[in-house]
Amino acid sequence: VLLAVGTELSEGVILNTHFRFLGSALQALGISVLKGVQVPDEAGLFEAELRMSLDQADLVIVTGGLGPTSDDLTREVAARAAGVSLEFRDELWRQLLERYAGGTLAAGIPASNRKQAYIPAGFDALANSRGTAPGFCGAVGKSLLVALPGPPAELEPMFLEQVVARLAPGAGQEGTGQEVLVGNVLLSPESVLEETLQRLRREDLQEGEVRWGTRVADDRIVLTLRGGSKQQQERMFRGLCEELGPLLVRRADERPVERLFEILRTRGLTVSFAESCTGGLLCKLITDLPGSSQVFRGGIVAYDNELKTRLLKVPKALLGRYGAVSREAAEAMSAGLLSATHSTLGVAVTCIAGPAGGTEEKPVGTVWISGRTASGLHLCIDFHLRGSRDMVRRRSAVAALLVAECLLTGADASGLRQLPG
Amino acid sequence: VLLAVGTELSEGVILNTHFRFLGSALQALGISVLKGVQVPDEAGLFEAELRMSLDQADLVIVTGGLGPTSDDLTREVAARAAGVSLEFRDELWRQLLERYAGGTLAAGIPASNRKQAYIPAGFDALANSRGTAPGFCGAVGKSLLVALPGPPAELEPMFLEQVVARLAPGAGQEGTGQEVLVGNVLLSPESVLEETLQRLRREDLQEGEVRWGTRVADDRIVLTLRGGSKQQQERMFRGLCEELGPLLVRRADERPVERLFEILRTRGLTVSFAESCTGGLLCKLITDLPGSSQVFRGGIVAYDNELKTRLLKVPKALLGRYGAVSREAAEAMSAGLLSATHSTLGVAVTCIAGPAGGTEEKPVGTVWISGRTASGLHLCIDFHLRGSRDMVRRRSAVAALLVAECLLTGADASGLRQLPG
Repeated sequence: VLLAVGTELSEGVILNTHFRFLGSALQALGISVLKGVQVPDEAGLFEAELRMSLDQADLVIVTGGLGPTSDDLTREVAARAAGVSLEFRDELWRQLLERYAGGTLAAGIPASNRKQAYIPAGFDALANSRGTAPGFCGAVGKSLLVALPGPPAELEPMFLEQVVARLAPGAGQEGTGQEVLVGNVLLSPESVLEETLQRLRREDLQEGEVRWGTRVADDRIVLTLRGGSKQQQERMFRGLCEELGPLLVRRADERPVERLFEILRTRGLTVSFAESCTGGLLCKLITDLPGSSQVFRGGIVAYDNELKTRLLKVPKALLGRYGAVSREAAEAMSAGLLSATHSTLGVAVTCIAGPAGGTEEKPVGTVWISGRTASGLHLCIDFHLRGSRDMVRRRSAVAALLVAECLLTGADASGLRQLPG
Repeated sequence: VLLAVGTELSEGVILNTHFRFLGSALQALGISVLKGVQVPDEAGLFEAELRMSLDQADLVIVTGGLGPTSDDLTREVAARAAGVSLEFRDELWRQLLERYAGGTLAAGIPASNRKQAYIPAGFDALANSRGTAPGFCGAVGKSLLVALPGPPAELEPMFLEQVVARLAPGAGQEGTGQEVLVGNVLLSPESVLEETLQRLRREDLQEGEVRWGTRVADDRIVLTLRGGSKQQQERMFRGLCEELGPLLVRRADERPVERLFEILRTRGLTVSFAESCTGGLLCKLITDLPGSSQVFRGGIVAYDNELKTRLLKVPKALLGRYGAVSREAAEAMSAGLLSATHSTLGVAVTCIAGPAGGTEEKPVGTVWISGRTASGLHLCIDFHLRGSRDMVRRRSAVAALLVAECLLTGADASGLRQLPG
């Protein structure tokens, strides 16, 4: 049973993404979800649901309600349901202090944060590497109760890094031989992925069925295959690679920007970006990664055409003749970028992100990407992406990362010229 | 109670957006949501939840399970829970035929669709103008049971056009006087906000209690006050403004970047950004907004010091003498930015985001922000932010937006010099 706590959820202020994430992750472990319940921050309702869930299921995961404020009730309610008191944990308090002030200034931490160092007695703490709220887990009767923080950026790694291992042994008994294959699918609509998988399953004549789960992240779809034999899963995955192309189907879960970062880092190369429609998103993605200064020199966001000329030396006449979204403009942008930044690799993106600005000839979603190395390699590809402004921008950024990767690894970029869907 | 049916939801294949939509729509009608439950397509579990929900609440909305396939169970389960049989409705069947073949080809409709012309006896049908599955609603004991189709594109208009009118009269009575005050709090730790609110509540001697909820977004905390009288809520909000400062406490829910965008747009001004540690985040935030080309010219992400010199003309000697994170560097960056981009407003940010790079004198979280207009106004402020790399970057971006706002509106920026917490 999944139990999500938060008045903002009940009142529809924020979208509950936990059920999807946990549902597909548990499914991948062979654990079926009885139900998902969301309740407001009200102790009575919350406790009643928690007790009922502990009666019904072997595993209850509570999300949210671990913050320092008075409407964060999960610690108290979990302790009551477990029939134990709350226990102050020195090590959790130390971690909070360190997070707040580099370990030196205990005076700087608000007293209400002290609340977060308490967990139900006898429970195990789950460290939170991305926020202040630790999670916890422990047995209540014959059930396992797990409490995770509400922000997805904290919940998701905590679940994957600390909870899965605790569930796997149990899940393993039940699901011996439960092979799981995890991969990524890039730049493809979820519906095309679904249809392709269904066709591949129909065409496979072996007994036993491969099932799948998908999770749509900002920059990729995380695909999980389970059920059937390992050979069947492999066959299906290979079939998918053949259908969608090896550039778009990856045999691991890795953000495209991390992959480029690793290539650059291990080879001692540097990159810079010239962005128009993506408006800084590429620079932001790479600088999200700690240590990015090793490989990233900087970028030029030339949103206005005049800045394409002034900062990237794209001739005004060229922009007038071919337009800012054209092969000619993208190539001139990457050339200007390399002279401006002196990085080993320069990638330029220009596109029509919408909602306005599309024409019959160049509809919203038209993207030109030019990658260029100081050594003289060059690759320029146009893409035709679908979706909202936000989606076109995010997919343009992924496409730019893939063009850069092809340029550096010599991978055949022809798969990028014809995207599925 | 909201009850969502579908194995795809439980297994995390698709994201449940119903709770957010219905939660906020019901909230607006003054109806508070007791809980939201999602169950797989299994008759036993589904019926048990539905019966329990009908006992607990005056209104139960079931979403999904109205399709033509064998795992669509809502019709049967609702009829059983209501203790009535299913009834074939000629008018629903005619509508289905029309939808399928323009009314001419009854042969073209799959037999399984006939199922969709049945609803529980005595219930009202809800027409579906966007799909084949009609909804229905009717009384069960003292509760109202509403069933809506799963696809959001069918559910949302059906709810707004046909269900709201049935709920509004009763809802109005219950919800009289339910005042809600919504605001934003910027650059303040959630724990400091909590302590301040608790102190203000203790100091308020009136009867009746104001309660609050907080939601932490990337760029702000959304604060909701409810309960007590309108005057009490206002008093508490004013108290908060006095404690944290009027720049950091806002009387609406509005993203800081949208606020700057509006000021720029209505005054016909343009902005550009010079970013170091924020690495493109500011440019990305403003270009997230459709229409940003009206106000945003572009940006320079000078992550590497050499680029600060080459692109922003920051003297190398200055960087050597004061360091890249200093008042001198920030001021030189904004000056260089204005000459490079010719925008009316230029904002430069330089900071130590961590995890590495901090020193005793300039610890992680040290930020210098310089805003400068073409007309000669200038404002330079240093901030000392806490938190992870990601948090320092996000807060630096918000701080930069506030410096820009102060520069343009003439608001007293002294509140920014001493952040709470």
